[in-house]
Amino acid sequence: MDGLDEDRAIADLRALAQFGKVGTGVNRPALTDADVAAREWLRDRMAEAGLAATIDGIGNVYGRAPSAHIALLAGSHSDSVPNGGWLDGALGVVFALEIARARRAAHPNAAVGVDAISFSDEEGTFLACSGSRSFCGALTPSDLHGARNAARESLTGRLDSLGWSTRPLARLEPERHRAFLEAHIEQGPRLIESGHHVGAVTGIVGLRRRQVRFEGQADHAGTTPMAMRRDASMAMHAFALSAAKELRAAGSPDSVWNLGVVLVRPGAANVVSDEAEIVVEFRDLSTAVIDRMDEALRALIDRTDGAGGVRTTSSIIGRIEPTHMDERLVAIVETAAAQENARSERMQSGAGHDAMIVGRQIPAAMLFVPSLGGRSHHVSEDTDEADIRRGLRVYARAAQSILEALAPNGRGAL
Amino acid sequence: MDGLDEDRAIADLRALAQFGKVGTGVNRPALTDADVAAREWLRDRMAEAGLAATIDGIGNVYGRAPSAHIALLAGSHSDSVPNGGWLDGALGVVFALEIARARRAAHPNAAVGVDAISFSDEEGTFLACSGSRSFCGALTPSDLHGARNAARESLTGRLDSLGWSTRPLARLEPERHRAFLEAHIEQGPRLIESGHHVGAVTGIVGLRRRQVRFEGQADHAGTTPMAMRRDASMAMHAFALSAAKELRAAGSPDSVWNLGVVLVRPGAANVVSDEAEIVVEFRDLSTAVIDRMDEALRALIDRTDGAGGVRTTSSIIGRIEPTHMDERLVAIVETAAAQENARSERMQSGAGHDAMIVGRQIPAAMLFVPSLGGRSHHVSEDTDEADIRRGLRVYARAAQSILEALAPNGRGAL
Repeated sequence: MDGLDEDRAIADLRALAQFGKVGTGVNRPALTDADVAAREWLRDRMAEAGLAATIDGIGNVYGRAPSAHIALLAGSHSDSVPNGGWLDGALGVVFALEIARARRAAHPNAAVGVDAISFSDEEGTFLACSGSRSFCGALTPSDLHGARNAARESLTGRLDSLGWSTRPLARLEPERHRAFLEAHIEQGPRLIESGHHVGAVTGIVGLRRRQVRFEGQADHAGTTPMAMRRDASMAMHAFALSAAKELRAAGSPDSVWNLGVVLVRPGAANVVSDEAEIVVEFRDLSTAVIDRMDEALRALIDRTDGAGGVRTTSSIIGRIEPTHMDERLVAIVETAAAQENARSERMQSGAGHDAMIVGRQIPAAMLFVPSLGGRSHHVSEDTDEADIRRGLRVYARAAQSILEALAPNGRGAL
Repeated sequence: MDGLDEDRAIADLRALAQFGKVGTGVNRPALTDADVAAREWLRDRMAEAGLAATIDGIGNVYGRAPSAHIALLAGSHSDSVPNGGWLDGALGVVFALEIARARRAAHPNAAVGVDAISFSDEEGTFLACSGSRSFCGALTPSDLHGARNAARESLTGRLDSLGWSTRPLARLEPERHRAFLEAHIEQGPRLIESGHHVGAVTGIVGLRRRQVRFEGQADHAGTTPMAMRRDASMAMHAFALSAAKELRAAGSPDSVWNLGVVLVRPGAANVVSDEAEIVVEFRDLSTAVIDRMDEALRALIDRTDGAGGVRTTSSIIGRIEPTHMDERLVAIVETAAAQENARSERMQSGAGHDAMIVGRQIPAAMLFVPSLGGRSHHVSEDTDEADIRRGLRVYARAAQSILEALAPNGRGAL
C-alpha cells in the first residue's frame, strides 16, 4: 500500500502502550481513565491523518475518510482486560490507523476510503462488545441499561460522568461500509507452535454453556456406610470424565470444550457432599456440531440421572452463535500473505472478537499474528516485532486488494 | 439397677433441651450462654443427687460419688454443634446423671460408686474434646492457648470472662476411675436400618486426611487446542474416581472415605484450570488398614503425577489414631442388652467421641441408640422414646455389672 510506514505504526503501538502501562502490559479496562486517555489520543491521531474523527456516545473512536462514499471499515478495540497485554486489540487498532492514514495521504480525494475504528469495551468490563454491538444496532436498551462493571457502576452512569452519553452514536452504514477487516493477536499457541506467520481466520466459533447440577444428601462421612451415600461430588467427577469422552466423540477435530467451573458443597472433609455443580462450555464453528455435542451431553445426563441416588439436572446458561468470515475476504488475506512471503494458515478463532458482531452484518475477515507462548490477557503477552511488521504488511496488502475490489472499476463489489 | 427412674431421666432430658432450644433442636455451642446455663443446671442436678458437684476450669461438669474410693466414670458432653440436635451427647450425660443418682440413693455409703461427667466442648467450638483432653492430661498448653472459636475469640479469654479459668481442673484418677461408659446417639443409619435397638461399640475409627494438589496451566478455553492443555480440573476428576476404586480395594468392609473438599481455580467457564485441590479422608478401626489405604493413594499419585502435563503432589493434613473399646466392657454391654431383650449389634463408631480420649487411658465402652433417619448435628435429629428408655435400661444394667465387677468381692477388677 502506498505510503505505508511500518516504523510509524510500531511507534504508535508503543505510544498507545503507555496508557495504563503496567510492567510489560497495560491495565486499560473500558472507560477507565487510562482507556479514555488512550481513546482521546487515538482520536487525535485519526484527526491528524485527515479523518473526520470522533468519540461516539458509547466510547467508539471512529475516523471517517471524508472524501469517501464507499469504505473499508478497519479496526478492533483498544480497551484491555485488567492487567492485560499491550497488543491484543490495540494491534488491530493501530494497523487500521496506519492504513487509513496511508490511504488518506496517498489518495486524499478517493471515493473509496478506509474508515478506522476502535470499538468500546470488547473485553466486557461493562458488557462484552458493547461498542461493536451499538455500531451494528445490536444493543438493546435493556442490554445498555443493565450493563455494570465489577464495582456495580453502570455503563450509562459512567458515560454520563464522562459527558459522552449525549453524543451521537456512530452507526454501520451498509451502503458505505462494504467490508470489515480486523487484525488481532492469535491468543493461542497454534501459529507459534506450527511456525506460521499469519492466521487467515475462517470464522469465529460459537459457544454454548450447559450448567449441570448434582443433588445428593449431606451425611456424616464417618458414620454413613458407603452403600447408603448419595454423594453429589462423586457423581460429578464421573460425569466430568464421561462428558469429555462424549464431547470428543460428538465434536469435530477443531471442537474445544472446558469444564472450568466446579463447585462442591458443603465443602467439608467430613461431610458427604449434597450439592455439586459444573459448567460445560463447548465451542465449534458449526452450529450443527455444537447442537450434536449438546445432544450428547443431554443424553449422558438422562442416562446418569438418579445413579447413586444423585439427581442430575442441567440448563443452558450461555449461547453465542458462530460467525463465518467472508470467503472472498479470507482468500484475499491468504493471497496477500503469499505475496508477502508470509506462511499463512486458515484457522478458526476460538475467542470472541468485534468481527463476530460486525461479520453478521457485512463481509468481514480477520488476520491473526502469532502470540509468543500462546499467551494473552496477561502482561506477559507479546509478539515478535518481525511478526508484527510482517502482519502489518499482509494486512495493508489485503486492504489494498479490498479497496481495489470496491472501486467502481474494480473486480466487483464485495 | 435399684432406684433407676426412666421417667425422671426423660424429664431431665427434656429439661436440658430447653437450654438453647431452637425448634426441635438446640443451639448450645461450648461456653455460649446457653451451654453455661445448661452446665450450671447439670451441676445443680448432680448436687441434688448427693454428688460432690463442680464445674472445673475448662467447663467440665463433674459429680463425684463422695463415699467412693473406686468409681465407674459415666458421661458424655452437653454442648452441641450450632443448631444441633437435642440428644447427641446430652443423652449420655443424662443417662450418667440418672445412674449416679440411682446408685447414690440405693447405696449412699458404697466404696464403689458412679462419678458423672459432662465434658466441655466435645464438638470443637474452640477445640474438639478439649474437656476430655484436659481431664485426661492430653491437652498441651499450646493446644489450650491456640484454641479459638469461629469469631476468633480465644478459649482462655472466654474462660476468663466466665470467671472459670482460675478454678481447679478435674483430672482422671486411674486408681479411682476403673472404667468409662458413654451412651450416645448413633449419628448414622445403621441401627435404624437394620432394626437393632442398641449398638455395642467396639472402637472408634481412626482417620487420615490427605490433601492432593493438581497444578496445570491456565489457558484460554477457546483458543487452546485440546491436545495442548494442562488441565488441572480434569486430572482431579480422574484422580477422584481412581482414588475411590483404590480405597475400596485396599480398605476393609467397614472402611469409609470421603472426598468432600473440592476446589478448582481460577473457576471460570472460559479458562482452563491451572489449580485443583481435593481432600481425601478415610477411616477404619485398624491402623494397618488406614496405612494400606494411604499407601494405595500414594501409589496412585505417583503413577498419575505428570499425566496430561499436570503435576500432582500431596500431604497429610489430618490424622487421628483409632481407639479400641475394652473387650470385657463391650461384652458387658452385649449381655446387658440380651437381658433387656434388646437386639444389639457390635459396631464401630465412625464419628469421634469423648470415649476416644478417655479410652486411651482406662477401659472404656460406648452404647449407641438408634438415630431416626440416621440424622445428627441437625435440629431434626431424634430417637424414638421407646429406644431412649430401652437404651437407658441397657446402660444401667451394664453399669450395674461393671460396679459389681469393681466391688472388692466382685468377679475381678477391670
